[in-house]
Amino acid sequence: MTKTVLVTGASGFIGRHALPGLLARGYEIHALSRRGASRDASGGVIWHRGDALDTAAAAVLVARLRPSHLLHFAWNADHGVFWRTAENLSWLAASLALLRAFAENGGQRFVGAGTCAEYDWTGDGLCDEAMTPLRPATLYGQSKKAMHDMLAAFAPGASLSWAWGRIFFLFGPGEQPSRLVPHLIRNALTGQPAICRLGQLERDFMPVEDVGDAFAALLDSDVEGAVNVASGQTRRLGDFAQMIGRACGGAVEVRRELPGNEPLRLAASTERLQQELGWSPSRDLAAALADTVEWWRAKSGAG
Amino acid sequence: MTKTVLVTGASGFIGRHALPGLLARGYEIHALSRRGASRDASGGVIWHRGDALDTAAAAVLVARLRPSHLLHFAWNADHGVFWRTAENLSWLAASLALLRAFAENGGQRFVGAGTCAEYDWTGDGLCDEAMTPLRPATLYGQSKKAMHDMLAAFAPGASLSWAWGRIFFLFGPGEQPSRLVPHLIRNALTGQPAICRLGQLERDFMPVEDVGDAFAALLDSDVEGAVNVASGQTRRLGDFAQMIGRACGGAVEVRRELPGNEPLRLAASTERLQQELGWSPSRDLAAALADTVEWWRAKSGAG
Repeated sequence: MTKTVLVTGASGFIGRHALPGLLARGYEIHALSRRGASRDASGGVIWHRGDALDTAAAAVLVARLRPSHLLHFAWNADHGVFWRTAENLSWLAASLALLRAFAENGGQRFVGAGTCAEYDWTGDGLCDEAMTPLRPATLYGQSKKAMHDMLAAFAPGASLSWAWGRIFFLFGPGEQPSRLVPHLIRNALTGQPAICRLGQLERDFMPVEDVGDAFAALLDSDVEGAVNVASGQTRRLGDFAQMIGRACGGAVEVRRELPGNEPLRLAASTERLQQELGWSPSRDLAAALADTVEWWRAKSGAG
Repeated sequence: MTKTVLVTGASGFIGRHALPGLLARGYEIHALSRRGASRDASGGVIWHRGDALDTAAAAVLVARLRPSHLLHFAWNADHGVFWRTAENLSWLAASLALLRAFAENGGQRFVGAGTCAEYDWTGDGLCDEAMTPLRPATLYGQSKKAMHDMLAAFAPGASLSWAWGRIFFLFGPGEQPSRLVPHLIRNALTGQPAICRLGQLERDFMPVEDVGDAFAALLDSDVEGAVNVASGQTRRLGDFAQMIGRACGGAVEVRRELPGNEPLRLAASTERLQQELGWSPSRDLAAALADTVEWWRAKSGAG
């Protein structure tokens, strides 16, 4: 039987990196994107230009394609904006419409992109799918949690299989330039001040190619429910920033300012990902970082 | 300053009974309803025919009216259907769109209709806004809870005041005929078997006129967050069914079958409603029941 997947946000930072893993797993891929095909899109993908916020158009596409699988990445991810924007309400509404259309057109398995920001961050910092309470402190986290809760409540009655990949921290080619890792890389490469203010924070970083592949593996499995998508290892931001400096052959300044609302440590249980799903990261962190630095170097050279 | 309220679901079972209380409190009322004006609508209400599920049209109406207040009742309430229908996803999506449109058009206070089905029903049966965990067992309850959670997360950043009235059990003129109270009344009036199977269940019943007035009071207050809308007194279904039999001058058979998933007791804390909001039920239960019986008697006589 043909496995057909509709991928939303398919030209986004993570979406584009899920495509190779889906192709490798034998999916016929339909990709929905406002931008149409991204420049580095893999071959063998059928692109549909469209806005997932246009729920009527998205429903028409779903009714026409009748995909067996849906991988839903599309959401507002504008750096500095996505935490609080009222657009979170519209993305949740659009995600619900997509879920309903998918279920009513023969869909079998729905996988969505969640976030570590769904968890309560006031505890010891270890986020476990079964043990850690969900208590988002932001509109973004609450909107993602609401979609998770709705999936969990809706899927059984609709005979849908589903999973929800909770993304932690990531880096790689194509990240928004204003975010921390690109900021450090670009400034270190050009000799401008590259400052990591919150050097003592501990976070779980994963190369975006691995995040994309983990979602492809999750979609292709029958694992149900929430699954953290993370490496299982935390690093101090300061140490990670120094790695970036070395990879760039430049200087990064690490400070140890006190965080505001951010927790000191955010770690992920990865037992579900690694044991239940049987997926492991394939990329060495330093090698992935070196590739990312090269990508930014080539981009600035070309610019 | 003029207080202008847009009421959705305004010709529904509860919505229509909120209108007198809103008029009494000095609101200019715009009522949205698929049916247009209901037959027993109070005077002084401006009716707009429309479907709150048509989010684009609802947003246009909100932008045109720019109401200071929004009282949102519209939702699927089809007896036997509303617990599980996929339309719950669409009602949540439409409610989110309405909330965003309201906030972006100068809205000041949003009050929505929640449900006791948002609470965890596996405890001792007392539902308290602050103490009882929210753990809905149904898609309907989960959808209402998601709207509550989104309101709580969205409102502060949008400088919106908000409240969420959690409805328990109610009865009165205009209820769907297939539901328990109308079923008992109609059968008892016509000498058909009127059977209350789960006589030992304890529930909190309130006349729908009081429910509507409580929402009008809640809208007109500055009480924030979830507020149970209930009498604070539970009765055995069997006792309530006997009251119905007496009011009808007919016989009701009370059985004591074992409930399936339903909790034995569902009681409501009403401290927020009665102390914080300062609202008390105005109707005597037996008198309200007698009026309801009269309403059904007149209806069947006219039919």
